[in-house]
Amino acid sequence: MATESTAATLSEVFTPALVLDYDRMKANIQTMVERTDPLPLRPHLKTCKSLDVAREIMGNRREGITVSTLKEAEYFFEGGYNDILYGVGMSPGKVARAAALVREGAVMRFLVDDVSNAVALGQAAQSEGITLDLLIELDTDGHRSGLVPGDPQVLTLGTQIDREPALRLMGVLTHAGESYTLNDPASLEAMAEQERAGAVLAADRLRSADLPCEIVSVGSTPTALSGTTREGLTEIRAGVYVFQDLVQANIGVCRPEDIVLSVVTTVIGHKKDRGWLLVDAGGLALSKDRGTANQPVDYGYGLATQLDQREIRPRLQVRDVNQEHGILASIEGPIDWEAYPIGSRLRILPNHACMTAAAYEAYHVVRTGNTRIEAVWPRINGW
Amino acid sequence: MATESTAATLSEVFTPALVLDYDRMKANIQTMVERTDPLPLRPHLKTCKSLDVAREIMGNRREGITVSTLKEAEYFFEGGYNDILYGVGMSPGKVARAAALVREGAVMRFLVDDVSNAVALGQAAQSEGITLDLLIELDTDGHRSGLVPGDPQVLTLGTQIDREPALRLMGVLTHAGESYTLNDPASLEAMAEQERAGAVLAADRLRSADLPCEIVSVGSTPTALSGTTREGLTEIRAGVYVFQDLVQANIGVCRPEDIVLSVVTTVIGHKKDRGWLLVDAGGLALSKDRGTANQPVDYGYGLATQLDQREIRPRLQVRDVNQEHGILASIEGPIDWEAYPIGSRLRILPNHACMTAAAYEAYHVVRTGNTRIEAVWPRINGW
Repeated sequence: MATESTAATLSEVFTPALVLDYDRMKANIQTMVERTDPLPLRPHLKTCKSLDVAREIMGNRREGITVSTLKEAEYFFEGGYNDILYGVGMSPGKVARAAALVREGAVMRFLVDDVSNAVALGQAAQSEGITLDLLIELDTDGHRSGLVPGDPQVLTLGTQIDREPALRLMGVLTHAGESYTLNDPASLEAMAEQERAGAVLAADRLRSADLPCEIVSVGSTPTALSGTTREGLTEIRAGVYVFQDLVQANIGVCRPEDIVLSVVTTVIGHKKDRGWLLVDAGGLALSKDRGTANQPVDYGYGLATQLDQREIRPRLQVRDVNQEHGILASIEGPIDWEAYPIGSRLRILPNHACMTAAAYEAYHVVRTGNTRIEAVWPRINGW
Repeated sequence: MATESTAATLSEVFTPALVLDYDRMKANIQTMVERTDPLPLRPHLKTCKSLDVAREIMGNRREGITVSTLKEAEYFFEGGYNDILYGVGMSPGKVARAAALVREGAVMRFLVDDVSNAVALGQAAQSEGITLDLLIELDTDGHRSGLVPGDPQVLTLGTQIDREPALRLMGVLTHAGESYTLNDPASLEAMAEQERAGAVLAADRLRSADLPCEIVSVGSTPTALSGTTREGLTEIRAGVYVFQDLVQANIGVCRPEDIVLSVVTTVIGHKKDRGWLLVDAGGLALSKDRGTANQPVDYGYGLATQLDQREIRPRLQVRDVNQEHGILASIEGPIDWEAYPIGSRLRILPNHACMTAAAYEAYHVVRTGNTRIEAVWPRINGW
C-alpha cells in the first residue's frame, strides 16, 4: 500500500470522504474463502469497482470475476483480469460494446432468460462476428428476473441457444436476492439450499435433453456464507462480503465490527432543542439506501461511530439526510454535546456498501484502530 | 448547443444515460424569473453542477449563485461566476480551502448558527489572512439547522461575529425545507410568508442592535414559486426548479410535463408471471430517493414514459431497484408486453432530480418531443 494521499490522517482529509479498513477487509475475504472452499469463488466486483481491492480479493488469480456493467468489464479486463461474467440480463443493443472486448481477447459470459431475446442476441453477435457465451438466468426465489428451474421454457431457451450459430450455451445461474429479507441462520441455510437445488435441477434438465451445461453458478453474500451443501455447483458468486454493511449485519452474516467502509464526516451544527447533530455527510455522501428500514434494527441512513473505530461504540444514527446535510440523533438517552463539538469528526457505517461507495472516486485506506491514511485507492463509477 | 455526443439519438446512446429536455428547462427558468421578479434570484447550482446549465440560468449575469460544496464553488468560480454563497454550515476545517478561493478573488458567503463555531471560524480566517463574510443561518420551520428568529442567540452570535476581526456579518438566511411536506397552494403560500417573516424579524432585530444586515436571503423551490409578499427580502434562492421532478409535482409547483431530466433505459427482461418489466436502470442510475413515498402519489423509484416524451403517458412505475436492475410494474391494468419488447427503451422521470443527476458525468440534451441528441453537457460530482 503506497501512500498517495495529500492528507496524512482522517483528521485532515477533506470531508465527506470514503474510508476503507484494510484489516477488516482482509478478514472478510478470508472468511468467505473458508466458507466456500473448495468451490471456486467468482467475486462480484460491482461492490468495489477497484483494481486495488480486486488484487486483495484475487491474490494471484487472474480469471473468474463478476461485473454489473460493461464499463466494469472493460476496466477489469484492461487491468489484467479475464473470464468475466456480466451479471445483468444482456440486451441486443449492448452486443457491439461487448464484442469489442471479446475481439481484444476477453472471455465473457452473459445472461439470458427469454427465447426471443436469445434470437436477437444471436443476430447481433453474428453481425459483430463473435460468439456470445450465455448462461440461462434462473429464478429460485421470486426475487427478480430469470426462469423458474422447472419451467418448460428452460429447455426451449436452451435448445434455441444451442441452435444459434453465434451463441454458445455455457450453463445456468441464479442469485438468491430474497436472502436479504431473512435474518436467522436456519432460514438462510434453507435459502442457500433452495438456490443450489434450483440451479442443479435446471442443469440436470438441460443435460438430460443433451444440452451443454458446464457452469452451475449461484450466489449472494448471505447464501454464500450460509450454505452447507454445494453439490452440483461449479462456482459461487458474492460481492458485498468484502466490505459488509449494516444490511448484512441485520441479516446476521457479519457483525458491525466487520464493516469495512465508512464515511468520515465533520460536525457542522448542534440543534440542541431538537436533539440533532448536523454533519456534512448527507444523501449524496451516504446514499439514500434505506435497506435496514424493514430489518430487525433500523439504522436510518447509517450508524455513526467514533473517528478511530478502535472499537465500534455506536451512540448516534443518521435520522435523516438532505443533499449535503446529515441529521444525527441519539440511539439512547440525550446527546453528550461536548463530546461532538462543531468541527469534530465521526465515521458513519453504511446501510449498503455498494450504494455508498458509488458516490466516491477513491477509498482512503486505514488499518483497524488507526486514522493514518496508508493509501488512496481509485475506483470507477458510471456506465 | 454544439453536438459533441458520439451517439446521435436516444435510441443509440448507451443505457442508462441521463437526458435533459432543453425546452422544458428554459420554460422552468422563465417561470421562476417571472414569479420572483423583481427580487434578485440566487440560483442554487447544486442541482445542475454544470456550467452549461448555469449559462442558461444566468444569461449575462456573472454574480450571485449558491453552491452546496466547495468543489462546486471552485468549479463555478473557475468558470467565471462570483458572489458565491456556500449554503451548508461552515466548519473551521474547511476555511483553508475556502481561503484559497478568496485569495484568487472569489467573493464568498458562509453560514454559521453557533457562537463557539463563529469564534473558531474567526481564528481560522485570521490564520489564513482572510476575512470570512458570514450569514446567520435561521430556522423558520423546524426543518434542519439554524437559530429561530426570536432566539436571543441571534443577537449574541451577531455581536460575536461583529467583534471578530476576521469575520464580517453580512446578514441572515433561511431555507423553508419543510415546504417539501406540503401540497396545497394555501399552505405553500403560508409557508413562504413564514419563511419571509422569520428572516425579516431576525434582520430587524440585528439592525435594532446596530448590527449590519445587508442580506436577507430566503428560498426553496416550493416557497419561491408560492410566495406573494417579498417585503424586506434582498434575494431568493432555489435550485431544483430548473429541472423539477416528481416530488415537486406532488407538492404542486410543477406538472409531470415540466420535468426536465429523465433516465433513458433499456428493457432487459419480462417477468410475466409477476407482471414485472426489468430494465437496466437500477438504484445507481435512478438513486434510491423515495421522496414521493409519503406524498399524494407514490411513484416508487420513478415514473416510466415513452422514449420521445412527446407527451407524458405514464403507464409504468419503478416498483423496486437493485444496483443495476429496475423492476417496473403497471400503474393500471396488465402490462402490454408487446409494447415493451426486450431491447426497447423508456425514459424514467426521477423522484428527486438532484440525487438522480449525481450518478452521471453528463447530460444528453434533447428538444421536447425529439430524440436527437443536440449536445452533451458535462457536470461535476463529489467533494
